[in-house]
Parts: sequence; C-alpha cells; structure tokens
Amino acid sequence: MVTPIDPTSLAFLMAENRSMPMHVGGLQLFENPEGAGPDYTRQMYECMRDVDEMSPLFLKRPYRSLRTAGQLVWKQDDQFDVDHHVRHSALPQPGRIRELLDLCGRLHGTRLARERPLWEAHVIEGLHDDRVALYTKVHHALVDGVSAMRLLQSVLSDDPDERGMRAPWDAHPRSGAEPRVRDRSPVDLAEVPVQALRSALGLTAEAAGLPAAVVRTLTKGLRNETSALSLYAPRTIFNQRITGSRRFAAQDWPIARLRAIGKATGTTINDVVLAMCSGALRAYLRELDALPDSSLVAMVPVGLNAKQSHIANPDGGNAVGAVMVQLATNHEDPARRLDLIHGSMRDGKEALSSMTPMQIVAMSALGQAPAILTPALRLQGLLRPPYNVIISNVPGPRSTRYWNGARLDGTYPLSIPIDGMALNITCTSYDDKMAFGVTGCRRTVPHLQRLLVHLDDEVAALEKAAGVA
Amino acid sequence: MVTPIDPTSLAFLMAENRSMPMHVGGLQLFENPEGAGPDYTRQMYECMRDVDEMSPLFLKRPYRSLRTAGQLVWKQDDQFDVDHHVRHSALPQPGRIRELLDLCGRLHGTRLARERPLWEAHVIEGLHDDRVALYTKVHHALVDGVSAMRLLQSVLSDDPDERGMRAPWDAHPRSGAEPRVRDRSPVDLAEVPVQALRSALGLTAEAAGLPAAVVRTLTKGLRNETSALSLYAPRTIFNQRITGSRRFAAQDWPIARLRAIGKATGTTINDVVLAMCSGALRAYLRELDALPDSSLVAMVPVGLNAKQSHIANPDGGNAVGAVMVQLATNHEDPARRLDLIHGSMRDGKEALSSMTPMQIVAMSALGQAPAILTPALRLQGLLRPPYNVIISNVPGPRSTRYWNGARLDGTYPLSIPIDGMALNITCTSYDDKMAFGVTGCRRTVPHLQRLLVHLDDEVAALEKAAGVA
Repeated sequence: MVTPIDPTSLAFLMAENRSMPMHVGGLQLFENPEGAGPDYTRQMYECMRDVDEMSPLFLKRPYRSLRTAGQLVWKQDDQFDVDHHVRHSALPQPGRIRELLDLCGRLHGTRLARERPLWEAHVIEGLHDDRVALYTKVHHALVDGVSAMRLLQSVLSDDPDERGMRAPWDAHPRSGAEPRVRDRSPVDLAEVPVQALRSALGLTAEAAGLPAAVVRTLTKGLRNETSALSLYAPRTIFNQRITGSRRFAAQDWPIARLRAIGKATGTTINDVVLAMCSGALRAYLRELDALPDSSLVAMVPVGLNAKQSHIANPDGGNAVGAVMVQLATNHEDPARRLDLIHGSMRDGKEALSSMTPMQIVAMSALGQAPAILTPALRLQGLLRPPYNVIISNVPGPRSTRYWNGARLDGTYPLSIPIDGMALNITCTSYDDKMAFGVTGCRRTVPHLQRLLVHLDDEVAALEKAAGVA
Repeated sequence: MVTPIDPTSLAFLMAENRSMPMHVGGLQLFENPEGAGPDYTRQMYECMRDVDEMSPLFLKRPYRSLRTAGQLVWKQDDQFDVDHHVRHSALPQPGRIRELLDLCGRLHGTRLARERPLWEAHVIEGLHDDRVALYTKVHHALVDGVSAMRLLQSVLSDDPDERGMRAPWDAHPRSGAEPRVRDRSPVDLAEVPVQALRSALGLTAEAAGLPAAVVRTLTKGLRNETSALSLYAPRTIFNQRITGSRRFAAQDWPIARLRAIGKATGTTINDVVLAMCSGALRAYLRELDALPDSSLVAMVPVGLNAKQSHIANPDGGNAVGAVMVQLATNHEDPARRLDLIHGSMRDGKEALSSMTPMQIVAMSALGQAPAILTPALRLQGLLRPPYNVIISNVPGPRSTRYWNGARLDGTYPLSIPIDGMALNITCTSYDDKMAFGVTGCRRTVPHLQRLLVHLDDEVAALEKAAGVA
C-alpha cells in the first residue's frame, strides 16, 4: 500500500542532495540510574530496539515506480530491519564530549538511504563519566526539528520512579499515555492556507521551482521598508555553497545566568541568547580576519500571537514567523550589542504585527522552511543573502526528565545547514539550562567548536557589563 | 574528467540493490606494538586518514548525467572528504570478538552511497585485549575480493622494525615500494577473451540481461554429464531470496591441525577445509531440522593450470575456474565425508581439464562473478540451484606481517551473499592459521555464528577419525 507524500515533505526530499542532507538530529545525555550495572547501555539499547509495534511514521520510505507513474510516494518497508535503524555504538578513548561531538558530526553528515525508512538512532556508550548518549536523526520529510525534539521528549517523565517507558518510535511510547507521534504535516508549512504555495511545492521537481508569484510576495515582504527588516546582510564566510561535511558543537549554560543579565538590562532571555551568539560570531570572525564592517543579520523564528497565528494557520496549530534581527556585530561593546539586539527584535516583532496576512504567511513560510525557500529567493535575484545565519530558540521542558529512571542531563539539537547558510545555531531550554547546538559545514566554517569558547566568554562579558558578575 | 566503467564493474553496479550490497570486506586484527600508549588506535587512525596523495582508485565515483548521455562513468570526486571514508570507531562493552563481529555485520550490511567514492575503512578500538581492528569495505566494481585482500596486505611488511608504512589507499603505500594498487580490470572477468561476453555485460542494463548464447553455453557446460558436475543441488534454506541484513562470523584454526589430518588421510588441506565446512553445514542444518536428503553442492573456485589459464586469460594473469563439489552432507561419518569430498574435487578438476576452451571460459566466468551470472542462470530456467553455497579458499601470506610494528594477528574476508545464495564461506591462510570468514543474510541464515562452533567440532572429529587427535 502506498500513500501520497505531502507537498512540504516532498519539497524536502527534492531539495536534498549530497551537500545538503535534510535530516534533523538530536543528542541527549542521560545519567545512569542508581544501581545500573556495567551493562546499562546495552539494556537501554535493547529496550530501544525491541519494539513490539513500530509507529507507522518510522516504517515508511519514499518509493517511486512505474505503478506510481514515477511519483514519489510513501510505502511501508516490507523488509524493515530494526537493527539497521537502532544501533549500539561506542566512543573511542578518552571518551570526552569532544569524541562524542565528533561522532555526532560524522553521523549527521551522512545521508539517510532512501531505500529504507528515513531515520536512525544510536545508543552510545564510552563517555568517560559513564553517561549514556542517544543520537537520533530523522528526515525533515518526516518531522521538523521542533517536532523531533518533542518526539524524543514524549517518552520521558518527570517522575524518576516511573518505569515502562519505551522508545520514541514505539507505536505506544509510554504505557497508558496516548500516542503523540504525529507526522510533520499538521504543524508546518503544508498547513499554510495558500493553496498556490501548497500545490506549487508539491508539483515542482526542484526546490527552486516555486512559482514566481509566491517568490515575489516573499521577496516583497522581506524587502518592505516599513517592516524594518534589513535585507542587506553583508557577505560572510557563512554565506557560500556548502559541502556535505558536518561539524557539531554543543554546550549549555545555566538559565539563571542569562536571566540575571536580562533582568539587570531590561531585556529578555532570548535577547541575551542572541547577544551571546552575536559576541561569539564577532569574536570567531575576527579571529579569521573575516568580520564584515556592517552588522550580521540573523533570521530568528518567533511564535506568532493568537490573531497572527490564526491567519497563518486557521487550524489553530502553532505558527511561526521570522524576524530579521540586526546582531550589531559591528559594535565593540557587549552592552551596546545587547541593547541594539533588543531594539531590533522589538522592531521586528512590531513589524510582524503590522504585516498583511499575505506577508505573515510568507514570513511564516520562511521561518518554517528556509531550506526550501532560500534557494528560490536567491534565484529571484536576491544575490546578497537576506540574512547571514539562522538562530532558533525552542523552549523545552522546565523540569528534570527521566527515562526509566535515567536522568536526562542535557538535550541538544542538530540542524540543517544549507547552501548559502553554512551555520545554524539552535538553542533549547531544558530544566534550568540553555543548550546551544551549533551545526555547520566543516569545510565552510572552520574550527566551529571555537564558537563554544566565544559563547562562554560572551556570557561572562555580558554579566560584567550588566553588573551581575 | 570522466572515464568509462569497464563492463564487469558496470555489471556489479547494475546488479546491486538494497538486498544485495556489492562490496567485499576485510577484517584485520593487529597487536599493539611494543611501547604503544593508550593513544595507539588514534595514531593508527590518523596515519590511515592523513594521506598526502590518494590512489586514484579511491577517488572515483560512479556518475551519470545528461552530458554522459545517461551512461554511468567514473568521475573524480571533487568534494572528496577523507573523514567520510576513514573512520575511528569503538566497540561497546565488553569488547569481545562477538561485539566486533556484530559491528562488522552491521557495517557490511549498509550500502555504499554512489555519490561518493565506493569505500570505507574503520579503525576500531575497544577490544578487551587491546588489539586494534581494521574493517574495510570496497565495492566489487573497484576490486574483487582477492584483490582487496592483496591490497590490504600490500602495505604490510614481514619486518617488525620497518616503519613508514602508509594506508592501503595511499598512492604510495610504502616508502620505496612500487604502487600495487590496481583496478579490478586486469585480473577478472573483463579479461576473459570473449568479446561477446565482454560487450554483453557492458551493454546490458540489468545483470540478468546476458545474451542467451552466453548463458546457454554456461548452462550446457554446467549440465555436461561428462564433466561430473552435479547440477542437481537440493533446495536448502540458503537458496532463497535474501534481504540486506548481514551477519558475519569469523575464526581461525592452526594450519598444522589441518595438515596433519590431510597427511594421515591422503587428502589436501583444501579438502580438509571443505570437509570442515561440510560437517559444520550438516550439523547446522540438522539443528534447524533442514538437512536435505541428498548432498549439498559447493561451488569452489580453483586456480587453472598454465594451459587452461592461457585460454581463459591470454594476458597471463591468474585465471580462476569453478568446480562443483559434492559435500557429502548426507553421510554421517566425518572420514567418509572427507574421502568423498576428496574424490569429488579430483573429478571436478579433471573435468575442468577436459573441458573445451569455451567451457573453461564459462566456468571461469562463473568462478569470478557468480553474483552477476547466477541470476542469469536462474532466468534461463535453472529453477533448482546449480549449487548451494560458495566456498572459496584464497592463499595469503605465509609469514607474520607487521604494519609499522603492529603485528597482524589475523585477517578475515567478508564476502557477498546474493539472492539464492544466502551464505558465503571464504577462507584465507595467513601465517600458520586458516581463517574462515562466514558472511550471510541475517534473516535467511539464522544464528549463523553457530557455524563456528560446528567448524570447531568438525576439526576435532576429523582429527579423531584420522587418528591424529
């Protein structure tokens, strides 16, 4: 039996090539539970692998044949082999976070084979502190990044004594809980109520094949002076063609530190996150002697308010718009950068609220699916990048979570660099920490892990500037 | 720049699908050299990765475009990323041979992506005895199994004090030594001097598309009663369609034990190897209640003598023919089985020597490329399998080898199961040991690792029968 592929998913499959694997990833770190033996990782692996009934999402693969008239459709994999998808791996010595990030970068840089369901999970042992890592990758045609993180978290509990949790790909992930595994369709671009956009994405054989009308609206929306959005982002090393090599860096910082900075300066935690990125990107580019004279521009997805949300998604699902934020990387003073970012963010959100429904839809589309839409924009003559880097901040659970008693220490997102956008920073809050996941093309963004050092320096600099150090 | 793909290589690329990855593999185990620190595996990995000049064989990938009129050609990978091909991995606890074989089975069951050069190497640490493992996979379109083993061995030395050895994929694998990296072309089917066969393989879009004339000759040769070849192999569980899941098992036994059995019974070491396989297959199938009444037939590639060789390969390269050996699995007595195998092997070799040049060519082709030719035979109405299992015995180095001081402990081949031939046993001698590499479809051949236990039992049984225990 075959089922049709929704237009957005199809667009992600079409946009994918060797240089741009289109899967999102997640890295989770667990503490061994009390009394866990040396076999604990193997037990976790076996529990993840031995699934009674797989969720249908994890059983389907793209399929094209004469019978489907050459169209790609979803088909259940009749040779499904769970051992191919759920794997038990180990880190080389000395098993530091560095070796873990190396492995994640390598795994994230390999495309998922179309001949099988589009996901993999690796239960990883060998961390020197005996924690267990879980790296998961799922094709963007199945879930978007936010849904993927939610999916991983759906099997967790805030009760350390709860047992009976299963794998996120289990059709019944927790005994008693209702299934939360949903296809990407209900929460994303496919639900944007513009029939033209929907069918256009579906019909096109290349991601760049959006009809001119949609792209004109998008570019007009982005160029609109009244919307206070700069489209004149400078050229940087991030805005070039990329290769398929990936590097991943991740670290977290106590939210309390970010909150203190925000409180003392009258800014939000999200502003502080952006200021950290700004300072880190500035320091990183200076080291490479590649800092542009004018400010870098970040594309920052933001949640829309109820009314806007209704326009962008009449079904009442969450809708996301995009704000172009001036990162003020041309300013030396951390306090000044934070202040300018705060203003730019406020202006952008106001602009969003004054936009026409069509503009909101366009922005929403850009916020959801830059991988599909950015190439289209470039083809339309937007030779300078509309923005330099994507920085997302996705809220996560506020309390400590457990998986069958194993405490989740941290959870870090791996995202999708694309041509012209070689670096992606995705943050997610969990418990009392803000986790930064930095994914980039290893060849276009050299020594990407340096960004972590700069992020750390920047928190300290902001604390000092805010007088809370 | 693109270069044409020779007909045999093309046939292997065409024959490949998700259930039949067409790469050969090798597993090598090294002792850490004297004074090696805890970082030794990493050093080996870095030495294997940091190659000044890659051998062209390892830089080319299959490529098809409008410019090549839709034909597959070789093209140098202009985004070659050595980190994708040479990897540093580790075993989960407790790091037994079992975990190593599991990993090799998993790696061997994954197809090489066509978008990159068709090879991978994994330097693996975490064995409980601190040895280092090297698993290598190379597409059959680049090298055949024998060449792959030679290639891996080409960088080794019998001098434990020699240093400066590089990776097998280095254009200059050893300082001072001449490059031995050769494409598969000079040693295989492509050199069989039958223009029709050559071009037929090249022109066909499917492996099964051999012209009827060639296949008729093949089947006639195989069916020829005077050649004492049984084509009436019984149906077994090995002779079904396979999936892409792989299991690998490997172990070695002292050649001295096999030689003693041969000496006492007037048989060859190769006969003893076949008798071990026979007894093990019999025990294995009995456990599954799946032993056929009549004897299993093995296809055993053998070297041709000088005159035959000249017919099959006028360039003077090694030529390989195929002998169908009755494994006598229907007999209970190990001594009787060995005796019958010895006779069947002798008859088969004699038959080979009485064959016409065309028959030799046909057999030679079958010996070289069963993956390509077997489906063709089946399509020609040979509904019963012409043989049940492929057992190869490839001689290797007779003395201890070293790589920069690290002693090579063992070297084990991983081969290619195909539809209808779910199990492959390849043996290779090294130093004073005979190594058995058993590769099978994990789903078609359950508990394949049991064969190792049975092989071990069978050596003991043969020793007892020969009176040398």
